[in-house]
Amino acid sequence: MVKVTQRVKKILAGYESDNPGTKANLARMLMHGRLGGSGKLLILPVDQGVEHGPARSFAPNPGGYDPHYHFQLAVDAGLSAYAAPLGFIEAGADSFAGAIPTILKCNSANSLSTNKDQGVYGSVNDALRLGCAAIGFTIYPGAEDQYEMIEEIRELSEEAKSVGIAVVVWSYPRGGALTAEGETAMDVCAYAAHLACQIGAHIIKVKPPTDAMHLDAAKKVYEAQNIDVSTMSRRIAHVVQSCFNGKRIVVFSGGAAKDLEGIYDEARAIRDGGGNGSIIGRNTFQRPREDALAMLDQIVKIYQGKA
Amino acid sequence: MVKVTQRVKKILAGYESDNPGTKANLARMLMHGRLGGSGKLLILPVDQGVEHGPARSFAPNPGGYDPHYHFQLAVDAGLSAYAAPLGFIEAGADSFAGAIPTILKCNSANSLSTNKDQGVYGSVNDALRLGCAAIGFTIYPGAEDQYEMIEEIRELSEEAKSVGIAVVVWSYPRGGALTAEGETAMDVCAYAAHLACQIGAHIIKVKPPTDAMHLDAAKKVYEAQNIDVSTMSRRIAHVVQSCFNGKRIVVFSGGAAKDLEGIYDEARAIRDGGGNGSIIGRNTFQRPREDALAMLDQIVKIYQGKA
Amino acid sequence: MVKVTQRVKKILAGYESDNPGTKANLARMLMHGRLGGSGKLLILPVDQGVEHGPARSFAPNPGGYDPHYHFQLAVDAGLSAYAAPLGFIEAGADSFAGAIPTILKCNSANSLSTNKDQGVYGSVNDALRLGCAAIGFTIYPGAEDQYEMIEEIRELSEEAKSVGIAVVVWSYPRGGALTAEGETAMDVCAYAAHLACQIGAHIIKVKPPTDAMHLDAAKKVYEAQNIDVSTMSRRIAHVVQSCFNGKRIVVFSGGAAKDLEGIYDEARAIRDGGGNGSIIGRNTFQRPREDALAMLDQIVKIYQGKA
Amino acid sequence: MVKVTQRVKKILAGYESDNPGTKANLARMLMHGRLGGSGKLLILPVDQGVEHGPARSFAPNPGGYDPHYHFQLAVDAGLSAYAAPLGFIEAGADSFAGAIPTILKCNSANSLSTNKDQGVYGSVNDALRLGCAAIGFTIYPGAEDQYEMIEEIRELSEEAKSVGIAVVVWSYPRGGALTAEGETAMDVCAYAAHLACQIGAHIIKVKPPTDAMHLDAAKKVYEAQNIDVSTMSRRIAHVVQSCFNGKRIVVFSGGAAKDLEGIYDEARAIRDGGGNGSIIGRNTFQRPREDALAMLDQIVKIYQGKA
Amino acid sequence: MVKVTQRVKKILAGYESDNPGTKANLARMLMHGRLGGSGKLLILPVDQGVEHGPARSFAPNPGGYDPHYHFQLAVDAGLSAYAAPLGFIEAGADSFAGAIPTILKCNSANSLSTNKDQGVYGSVNDALRLGCAAIGFTIYPGAEDQYEMIEEIRELSEEAKSVGIAVVVWSYPRGGALTAEGETAMDVCAYAAHLACQIGAHIIKVKPPTDAMHLDAAKKVYEAQNIDVSTMSRRIAHVVQSCFNGKRIVVFSGGAAKDLEGIYDEARAIRDGGGNGSIIGRNTFQRPREDALAMLDQIVKIYQGKA
Repeated sequence: MVKVTQRVKKILAGYESDNPGTKANLARMLMHGRLGGSGKLLILPVDQGVEHGPARSFAPNPGGYDPHYHFQLAVDAGLSAYAAPLGFIEAGADSFAGAIPTILKCNSANSLSTNKDQGVYGSVNDALRLGCAAIGFTIYPGAEDQYEMIEEIRELSEEAKSVGIAVVVWSYPRGGALTAEGETAMDVCAYAAHLACQIGAHIIKVKPPTDAMHLDAAKKVYEAQNIDVSTMSRRIAHVVQSCFNGKRIVVFSGGAAKDLEGIYDEARAIRDGGGNGSIIGRNTFQRPREDALAMLDQIVKIYQGKA
Repeated sequence: MVKVTQRVKKILAGYESDNPGTKANLARMLMHGRLGGSGKLLILPVDQGVEHGPARSFAPNPGGYDPHYHFQLAVDAGLSAYAAPLGFIEAGADSFAGAIPTILKCNSANSLSTNKDQGVYGSVNDALRLGCAAIGFTIYPGAEDQYEMIEEIRELSEEAKSVGIAVVVWSYPRGGALTAEGETAMDVCAYAAHLACQIGAHIIKVKPPTDAMHLDAAKKVYEAQNIDVSTMSRRIAHVVQSCFNGKRIVVFSGGAAKDLEGIYDEARAIRDGGGNGSIIGRNTFQRPREDALAMLDQIVKIYQGKA
Repeated sequence: MVKVTQRVKKILAGYESDNPGTKANLARMLMHGRLGGSGKLLILPVDQGVEHGPARSFAPNPGGYDPHYHFQLAVDAGLSAYAAPLGFIEAGADSFAGAIPTILKCNSANSLSTNKDQGVYGSVNDALRLGCAAIGFTIYPGAEDQYEMIEEIRELSEEAKSVGIAVVVWSYPRGGALTAEGETAMDVCAYAAHLACQIGAHIIKVKPPTDAMHLDAAKKVYEAQNIDVSTMSRRIAHVVQSCFNGKRIVVFSGGAAKDLEGIYDEARAIRDGGGNGSIIGRNTFQRPREDALAMLDQIVKIYQGKA
Repeated sequence: MVKVTQRVKKILAGYESDNPGTKANLARMLMHGRLGGSGKLLILPVDQGVEHGPARSFAPNPGGYDPHYHFQLAVDAGLSAYAAPLGFIEAGADSFAGAIPTILKCNSANSLSTNKDQGVYGSVNDALRLGCAAIGFTIYPGAEDQYEMIEEIRELSEEAKSVGIAVVVWSYPRGGALTAEGETAMDVCAYAAHLACQIGAHIIKVKPPTDAMHLDAAKKVYEAQNIDVSTMSRRIAHVVQSCFNGKRIVVFSGGAAKDLEGIYDEARAIRDGGGNGSIIGRNTFQRPREDALAMLDQIVKIYQGKA
Repeated sequence: MVKVTQRVKKILAGYESDNPGTKANLARMLMHGRLGGSGKLLILPVDQGVEHGPARSFAPNPGGYDPHYHFQLAVDAGLSAYAAPLGFIEAGADSFAGAIPTILKCNSANSLSTNKDQGVYGSVNDALRLGCAAIGFTIYPGAEDQYEMIEEIRELSEEAKSVGIAVVVWSYPRGGALTAEGETAMDVCAYAAHLACQIGAHIIKVKPPTDAMHLDAAKKVYEAQNIDVSTMSRRIAHVVQSCFNGKRIVVFSGGAAKDLEGIYDEARAIRDGGGNGSIIGRNTFQRPREDALAMLDQIVKIYQGKA
């Protein structure tokens, strides 16, 4: 039995307008697993099946076709939370009731889509009946449908907050005038994080930024103000600053599959830059279970300052 | 009187987040008819009238203009359930109360339409007052309106689950960048099935896949992982795997009218691949009644492993 | 697989204002179990625990403390339905989903009560989420609170009928000016049955009447009209007649524990008088399981005309 | 980090009709604190202020006037949950968010009352916004208003279950024909526990029974069936059996202040009889903090089988 | 313009579960008028007209027949807030918009009543459209209808808190077994204040207690614990302690008309005992305006520690 730590209490204090129910659900995630109490989060998201199709997601490690696989992996690795779409949560929420905080990913895109939008197919009622600590939602800043997406999460978010459910926003710039490089550019990434904070997210998920700049107007300011974005940890620190000076939790996605050292270095940079942790999907469930557990163990140690 | 079999109990156990009312309705279908208790389903869907017009649907076998015809056929053939739009259900639900589980098909397209979408004209209240075991709904993964369709079924689905009604999703890739071949390609079909599972369907209906591949990104994975899709039964098995590793019921449509041996071979492949059965419309009601009964008798025997 | 029989269809035809959902649920009970299709019902009610306390109910046969015991007994005996209060239904509805139609008894009295009333603690929503075919409700014609009880069931009944749930009314004269003898008097029993029909019940449960008369005004008519109530089967026939001339299903409770021959004779009288069956609680679950099964087997045979 | 134990999983399995949200909240209590995972619960209830007035409740240990005192005590003692009325929960839910599961006691009586009833002043919405794991509610079996109380909790309970909140019922026989002795008599106590189970409670709180008998009809059965109620542990076992043969969690209140050995012996009897734990208010918060912590430590050890 | 003081911030911190909207309305009252920022409140309530009839209320100082009179008096005296029933608020809310915080008294009794209850005729919507900072509500602890009153305020309170309106409860023991002396007895007054806190009030209004004791069980505790209630300031301090150890605002009514020195002494005792102020109706508006202003000026000085 671990008591709520001062670090977690300080994080919760940043959410000063939220009701105790929502704070308790944030605390559930912040106090769970091996990083419980440290202010760091390590989250397993498995929405790849719906985003990229089942074979692309699970064929490399076929255990992942089974919804229980991911719940069990998150539990065994001592993660902070498990995030997935409705079907995957429904298929394990009873067997794993009380075993790990869950985040109901309420919208998703799919690879057959021809527009930059997502379908919403999870609700706050679903989150309540399935015992989820939070809802998750993706917005595409820059996309033609971005304002509709913002309006969808606003509605869900208002309802969630009234019943004590936390809100996690995946803020992924995409579409419109954005180039592929622009999607992860420093200015765009910090902007996307800030935008998610401003629409009321409790936890923000963004991609680790590169040192590219996308908007000319932004580039001028970064140069004029000598904002140091030369290293990943500096860039992370800038994103953290953009999240209400660190008063909102920000976690970083693992992105496309990469080698272990790349993953570990990124985690160290997130840690050193003051980020709140990682949310790693494909890099986890596409490895054999034992390899995934070993990798997650190493990431936990990095966030604990032991590696 | 047949007791709920272990096989059916195991299938029901996969729906672990559902209330007993919904499970009882799934059980009603799984325990009804000649395949009752086997874990297999043979369903008669008659939404052709609204999809293709009455003459194209019923002129070849004019008895089918009468709504009672289809109820009676499903009863006499010992099928698992009968699926139809609101009007057809309303026109027979009283006469056939208790005679066969029904599925209220809540949306439909029609051949006069100029866009890839469907109109919703059945509700959960309709399903309750008409004594239906389930609602049915079509989505078109890939279509421009796909997310709107997903949002429509989400709302119906949440309501249905709260009152113990099961949800059957017809997942038919269509529109957008999909070619005619792509609609039934292996990767697309498995994807469509997985997508329906993730949006919360209890029973998924897809078309039997071909060995074509549509998405390049998927094709690479199928090849790299040596996924064997050379035979129909292998392809069915891959779709079953994509349905939460077999934890969701998946049935296959008969598609366009074809010869009897083609139908029987397909049923054998569905059986051998571990699929849960067939949902056969045109191939049933467009044949003379006696021929249709003979054909359905043969399919039942195939699923029973006797043919 | 048994098809809906002509006898059951004729019974259903009596409920001509009900929607197909409600008729389907009536059909589920009429078609289930060993008496399925015969027009007869044999129902196991277990609300004794709440009415008389657990030890008085279950100590004679302690298996009955466990909610699954009763579900299993009803299934194994091939009964038509199982009726119980919320807690008992909740505690078995998932394990026995689809195994037997259930009736959610929505109100109950308890032996600590000092007034003739009951508490309502089951709802139509409960019935839906638990997959029940019907709700059950007790009224006490004659009691001070009788009109409140009638108003409570009216509200539940209206809601139930709108969503296809059948309504079973336990009509037990009690309180007010009624003597102990009066509660089961011929005139009172027929009156109670008719009253339940008039408030809209689909299935009426009353006690087998004695040949006593309670109301003087009624007695005069019975004598003047030479209504023969000399035998139990004649009295049953009079109750059946009072239930809209047989257009409403009426079943008879077993009452206090008695010897086997008494029970069998009563069942024969119910059968011969045209009653629709028995609802036997204490006499069932207070016997050892094997004795209970033997007794129920014999009652089934009686209703089948074989004993 | 403790994984959900087999014992807790088995307890949760008894709640087979509940959604995963409700099970997760039951798990939160069963997995929290020093008894987490053991299947035992030790709960601090502080509704004495509203039931008996502030001075009678808190003057003996004035720290208890402050709402934070009780939260902190429950946390420091490693208890399973803290139960209190709306005002006390509101006054600490933010400071102690995530620190301990809370139970919102939704109704209370007060000592100025002249009738056996309680006012309801907590709602399911309150429980959600305050992050409570459960609602609590008192019924008075036997009281004139008992059925109204049952109807109040029914409504709250249906709503709570739909949003994943657990339901704790204090079942305290009182009023009507009950004597002071009768309120805690063996038959009445078992009856009250069974009644709470039947109205749908997840956790039942009753007083430890004496060996007295209240209802003559019950007394006969206890004697005829040779039910051994000679020791407290036997009586506890009978109450457990009356709670759906152990499929519902039952905890016992500490009752009036008593000496330590009396409290410890009672806990041992609860443990030996298979009860799920204790809910101890006055005996906790009316002692000096250090004494209370020492007492709770000893009770924890008793439930751990170490004392 | 005065900045929110540390004293006010500390008071607001006690309302830790409330949303910022509600806290802002509490702050509006705590920061308004001559006592703004001091943590003290001086409130003018004018519900006498409805409680005692117009002539008894206003004939002594006929200006009071006009609703504007009281608004203007409260403004001119620099009070913290003005409380009145719907009609009086409606009749001045426009003219005095922004001039002084208002409290919509939502229920009232009248002198024609034969039972101890009140009619509710103000709503949260009324409070919003009229720009009120709070709603007010009277409960009668001890009265036969006390629980119904508690349930009425609970419903209003939940709604008010969700839209940021504060809740003021007049807790006046009355009816049932209470004697006239008992209504203001020390134990009863502290109990009534605590009860109002527990049902979720933000501000509690009680009468200044006498040194009488009403409940024997309470009297024993006061004696055993040597609770000093010998002076008014000690008794006030005990009431403050009973209000969550001072974490809830408690103000005291002036009661029946009395001489000026009596009023001033009472205010000094409230101040010295740590109470949050006074709510004085009849003693204000039944005096000539200039006398009332002089009296209020003196009370303000007392709370400022200058008199």
